[in-house]
Amino acid sequence: MQTLLINLHILTMDEKFTEYNPGYILLKNNLIQEVGPMSEVPSQSKVHTLDGKGAFAIPGMVNTHTHIGMIPFRSLGDDTPDRLTRFLFPLENACMTKELAYHSGKYAIAEMQLAGITTFFDMYYFEDELAKATDEMGSRAILAETVLEEACDSREAYGGLTYCETFIPKWLGHDRIIPAIAPHAPYTNTKDSLQKAAAISEKYDIPFSIHLSEMSFEMKQYKDEYGKTPVELLADWGILNNRVLAAHCIFATEADIAILKEQDVAVAHCIGANTKSAKGIAPVQQMRDAGIRVGLGTDGPSSGNTLDLFTQMRLVANFHKTYLQDRSAFPAREIVKMATIDGARAIGLADKIGSLEVGKKADIVLVETDSVNMFPIFDPYSALVYSANASNVRDVFIDGKQVVADKQLTHENLTTLRSNLDQQMGDFRIKALENS
Amino acid sequence: MQTLLINLHILTMDEKFTEYNPGYILLKNNLIQEVGPMSEVPSQSKVHTLDGKGAFAIPGMVNTHTHIGMIPFRSLGDDTPDRLTRFLFPLENACMTKELAYHSGKYAIAEMQLAGITTFFDMYYFEDELAKATDEMGSRAILAETVLEEACDSREAYGGLTYCETFIPKWLGHDRIIPAIAPHAPYTNTKDSLQKAAAISEKYDIPFSIHLSEMSFEMKQYKDEYGKTPVELLADWGILNNRVLAAHCIFATEADIAILKEQDVAVAHCIGANTKSAKGIAPVQQMRDAGIRVGLGTDGPSSGNTLDLFTQMRLVANFHKTYLQDRSAFPAREIVKMATIDGARAIGLADKIGSLEVGKKADIVLVETDSVNMFPIFDPYSALVYSANASNVRDVFIDGKQVVADKQLTHENLTTLRSNLDQQMGDFRIKALENS
Repeated sequence: MQTLLINLHILTMDEKFTEYNPGYILLKNNLIQEVGPMSEVPSQSKVHTLDGKGAFAIPGMVNTHTHIGMIPFRSLGDDTPDRLTRFLFPLENACMTKELAYHSGKYAIAEMQLAGITTFFDMYYFEDELAKATDEMGSRAILAETVLEEACDSREAYGGLTYCETFIPKWLGHDRIIPAIAPHAPYTNTKDSLQKAAAISEKYDIPFSIHLSEMSFEMKQYKDEYGKTPVELLADWGILNNRVLAAHCIFATEADIAILKEQDVAVAHCIGANTKSAKGIAPVQQMRDAGIRVGLGTDGPSSGNTLDLFTQMRLVANFHKTYLQDRSAFPAREIVKMATIDGARAIGLADKIGSLEVGKKADIVLVETDSVNMFPIFDPYSALVYSANASNVRDVFIDGKQVVADKQLTHENLTTLRSNLDQQMGDFRIKALENS
Repeated sequence: MQTLLINLHILTMDEKFTEYNPGYILLKNNLIQEVGPMSEVPSQSKVHTLDGKGAFAIPGMVNTHTHIGMIPFRSLGDDTPDRLTRFLFPLENACMTKELAYHSGKYAIAEMQLAGITTFFDMYYFEDELAKATDEMGSRAILAETVLEEACDSREAYGGLTYCETFIPKWLGHDRIIPAIAPHAPYTNTKDSLQKAAAISEKYDIPFSIHLSEMSFEMKQYKDEYGKTPVELLADWGILNNRVLAAHCIFATEADIAILKEQDVAVAHCIGANTKSAKGIAPVQQMRDAGIRVGLGTDGPSSGNTLDLFTQMRLVANFHKTYLQDRSAFPAREIVKMATIDGARAIGLADKIGSLEVGKKADIVLVETDSVNMFPIFDPYSALVYSANASNVRDVFIDGKQVVADKQLTHENLTTLRSNLDQQMGDFRIKALENS
């Protein structure tokens, strides 16, 4: 089946930042068959055609770090200093069920689709349910089961390791879903559990993720105990390699950056969550200068609140310019790159997604240019980074299938998704109020 | 005429942060006649009724600093270091006409209304045209004519002073519009022009605004020339008093803050523009602790890009928490306060607007709670600061009149406003491309 998208301002995000304005994209099944200027548009008589009416066409955005099971936590205790220990861990242990995770996952995926995120890298519990949710919703994802001593989806210590031995083979080979493994963090995992998780990643050749150098106490603890940074220690333990996606890396040192580059570890940069929690600003310019693959992440809906990369792009611009005291640092085009092709590189999928090029998967987002905040447009990248918000996303294709049409999901009813999730939240709400 | 708004989650933003959920608001002509819980809602038979369907009702937001004539500059040279001298000043001098300012003003006001901003403090040229635009659009505003040596609306040096002698008397006494005067900055104005502007402010008892302590070179220049900060110097020159709204104050020292408090000068905090341009983070916590009136501003559409305070609220949270290394600093409720009642205080209108209380002007914004990014809601202020975006504004009332209904302007056609502005931008576009 072919679909023709016409009258677009196409930002291909290829190596040369090629643009077509006006341009067209021809999809065949789940692939991009042609991209070019409207002057070369093929005859439209035989194919299903969508008139883009001047919208931007960008590659589906890549969210490199999130926790889709955590929608229930949104807006709970946002400004509380001891939030992780007061709300997150206790509520997960007491109230997170596979049904709650599944319905949260579906809702979160809906939110990402409506915001133009077509691929995400998740780290949570009950990833088998979340894979089912992803499959049903039609998104592309890497889904990493968390390994932690006490986890809500296992009764044994570090039960995620056992979980993965069933979960991973089950989903390996799926067209849009890649199973993965994710020890929570160095400070919550033993050396043994980290090495076992790394062994599973190697055995199945699947991604491995971990929260790394995120906490100031984490840095101090490792310095006191080992005289090393967490990055140095993980390198010593043989954990780091090109399958690893490290989330945050706020406190990465110069030496850490050299190690991350040497081991080809990628980084998920979550500026919104890192700064809302007052943790700090990761040295992303230095990482990029060193050649490290860096993508953007929303973090979970309790930490970043919204699952969209428009919010993140604006924060990346403002924070890094201010941090570097240079308004020309992190120009808009580079930030759009981080949200698309660089994100695809960070999660190892740049051969399939991240740019609008012939032969790549048809993951395409159309962003309206006729909303009030989008005029005039001298620079399309500036408009995306400094003006656009998630609600400006109009149409979204994943794997050749239109999942959002005119700002509505095509395949599910949002009210139903919300209502299903709400019904699962009874115990959670009671416990949340008790802790407030 | 009466209008009844029902089934709302009302955040009154009064002294006690009173909430009604579900609640109602009864408008009579341009005033709030009643606010209360739905259990006390008056009989609905005789009045025009709008069902809020669970939306948040908040006071119309107050944008304390903008330049509504500058829509043409949006997305032009955003990441360029020498932007002010390369694009802004030359293009203003060559291409800014009263027609362009007027149509830009109407467009900018439309954007603000659609984003829930009902009152703004403008600083630009051709303020007589902008007053006409504001009057036609139905917004509330303080409109300050800029005083600068070379201005696009005058042929004489510091022609804004002469302009004001006609402009101010013409608009004094208008119901929604207050004329004002605004020397551009200490570093672009002479002592004489500043004092003359202050005298005009005193003569008519009207607001006075100025960009202050915004530039690092400004701080150095005054230190080198006078051994003082700009704030100290303006105080010496008798310029500072409770009619003054100082924009930015990024580099205000502890001594400056004491002076600002002593003289009861208010501050317009524009975090988005200040950090996008890598200038820095104003010491707002210290200002608030000192009891200075601080409101939020978008700055112009070339500096802040979007004219909405949702973007600013999120940036305020993340920047100040990180700057203070305290995630509990600037809690969401205080930030919503800054965008509403504190903004009204900063511009001297807190007796009329800024909270939903009986007797105040009926400036009311309804924010949808059924969009995907707004679930669940444990804390309404968190939802507004961390989740909402400008596109979630659904209905807006100014002075009792509904200007936005279901996300559309009720009184103008946005496409027409854009087309009118676009037609005026011919020369501007040519010159802009020449400078690119």
